[in-house]
Amino acid sequence: MLKFDEELFLKLVEKEGLAFKGQIEEIVDSICQKGYSNIFLIGAGGTIAMMYPYEYILKSNSTIDVHAEIAAEFMVMNHRHFSKNSVCIFTSVSGTTQETVAAAEFCKERGATTLALVAEPNTPLTEVVDYCITTGSEKHSFDTFFMLLYMVIFRFMHNKNEFPQYEQFIREVSLLPQAILNAVKAFDKKAEEFAIRHKDTDYHMMVGSGNLWGNTYSYAMCILEEMQWIHAKSIHAAEFFHGTLELVLEDTSVILLKGEDETRPLMDRVERFAEKITSQLTVIDTKNFEMPGISEEFRKHFSVSINWAVLSRISVYLERERNHPLELRRYYRKVEY
Amino acid sequence: MLKFDEELFLKLVEKEGLAFKGQIEEIVDSICQKGYSNIFLIGAGGTIAMMYPYEYILKSNSTIDVHAEIAAEFMVMNHRHFSKNSVCIFTSVSGTTQETVAAAEFCKERGATTLALVAEPNTPLTEVVDYCITTGSEKHSFDTFFMLLYMVIFRFMHNKNEFPQYEQFIREVSLLPQAILNAVKAFDKKAEEFAIRHKDTDYHMMVGSGNLWGNTYSYAMCILEEMQWIHAKSIHAAEFFHGTLELVLEDTSVILLKGEDETRPLMDRVERFAEKITSQLTVIDTKNFEMPGISEEFRKHFSVSINWAVLSRISVYLERERNHPLELRRYYRKVEY
Repeated sequence: MLKFDEELFLKLVEKEGLAFKGQIEEIVDSICQKGYSNIFLIGAGGTIAMMYPYEYILKSNSTIDVHAEIAAEFMVMNHRHFSKNSVCIFTSVSGTTQETVAAAEFCKERGATTLALVAEPNTPLTEVVDYCITTGSEKHSFDTFFMLLYMVIFRFMHNKNEFPQYEQFIREVSLLPQAILNAVKAFDKKAEEFAIRHKDTDYHMMVGSGNLWGNTYSYAMCILEEMQWIHAKSIHAAEFFHGTLELVLEDTSVILLKGEDETRPLMDRVERFAEKITSQLTVIDTKNFEMPGISEEFRKHFSVSINWAVLSRISVYLERERNHPLELRRYYRKVEY
Repeated sequence: MLKFDEELFLKLVEKEGLAFKGQIEEIVDSICQKGYSNIFLIGAGGTIAMMYPYEYILKSNSTIDVHAEIAAEFMVMNHRHFSKNSVCIFTSVSGTTQETVAAAEFCKERGATTLALVAEPNTPLTEVVDYCITTGSEKHSFDTFFMLLYMVIFRFMHNKNEFPQYEQFIREVSLLPQAILNAVKAFDKKAEEFAIRHKDTDYHMMVGSGNLWGNTYSYAMCILEEMQWIHAKSIHAAEFFHGTLELVLEDTSVILLKGEDETRPLMDRVERFAEKITSQLTVIDTKNFEMPGISEEFRKHFSVSINWAVLSRISVYLERERNHPLELRRYYRKVEY
């Protein structure tokens, strides 16, 4: 597959991701023993979007008080639920994202417990936080972070006696990298076809819901807009009929990210509408992918990882077809503001 | 002013809005006496967007546990913080918005306390809920709802001993309609100029933050997209630099909604960037409007109302300049899905 090293993927995501299980349990158990009042998931751009699935999962599976907050806003808004008893969780590939580092310092100074997942070792973020999982590679870092976040979040739920299936779940987390790889292979041809068909499309509507809302928001903003300079509107399936639907014409590209959680009927509804109107409907549905060894019950959670990995295949083919490197920026980290 | 009846505005928003003060205090006090665990602000499209300012205000001023949730998602997600001890607040102009009515029924059936603000009397929503404020007119209903929501939300804060300035605040709420009217008059010419300049603009970026994020999201989706069929991307100021900025060119229309709360520096940062790049920058800043009799301390809260009212002036001129009635729909309530 174009720009995909299977061996490296399995090494980084499967082997190394799982290598942190013991360390994660130790960290989370020690936080829980000390006691905490709530969890803040904090990030910016791709890394706040990465937190939204886990905020959704917590809200719909646990009574743990959780807040996903955009780093820069969090620091100025005087959030009254934040205190020294809060647990603040961050992720960063480079460990240098300005707002994330600043937010971690902000939380640390106020006595909260801070935990970060970082790819690059010995970076500002790894230095600031109380607990850090450093994965050591920028390659496949998002896939790895998702794996680690499953372990972190579900361990918190387990320790609150709200997730007795924890051990089974973790066994299935260990099967996830192979499931992702299968999905990526199964989808690769479709990703390429999409990129060929849409290389000149200048606007996409992306619709998602539930634990896939974060991916929807992120892919539109961080990939299509930032890395390909294509206009993209992300819209929640539950909100689609309150405005954005009016822009759908017979040739509008509408991309639906379908997962398997409780909100799936909201996506079905958008699909019923869109297939009547546009000939350019793309449905990316995790139901189409086998996840060997993964139970029906947990597929919905793992959809987040599967969906993100297959979307990433579209990115590499868009890059090739549009002759537009994913790393190209007009302004980010190039212009002062 | 085009399509603006001052006398009617003052009658509806000032006289009738304030007429509900006693009733609102009675309702909120009785809910507080009975006790509650948290507040759910529930809506769809414009009415969930209308709740976001109050979610922000609560989070940054109160320890009351608050959740703003999209109606259709809320009903399927099995929200673990929702219980019979929750207070659920809804607004609806027509009283018939499908998802809102369904969500109110859902909450009522599960024993939660339900409160709705509705313009039209004797409609499905007014029948369902435990407590209802029926304002009786669709004209200026959003302005009226904002007024009522100030009273509702700040009364909850007052009753939690987190807002000792309540009486002063309410006196200032009574001055708000006149302040809105002044702002609308001061802005009207600019609104008209904007509509003339942008009658053929096919894409706008709208940026906001803090308690104006809801207006930003709503104006892009419910006015520009739904009522004018113009592509619009709403983006939070704290997220702007993580993707969308790359699409700004020298002629991109960027609209900044500046308010006066703690997040203003985030908007300043976007402004510094945008003014370097595009010649089509529009800054709508509540600081430019006098609010006679309103204290510095509370201006930031009232920015929500002021901002929404002046934005509404743009709508009527866009309608005229583009010869596109605000009521025109391709699909909403016309196509089955």
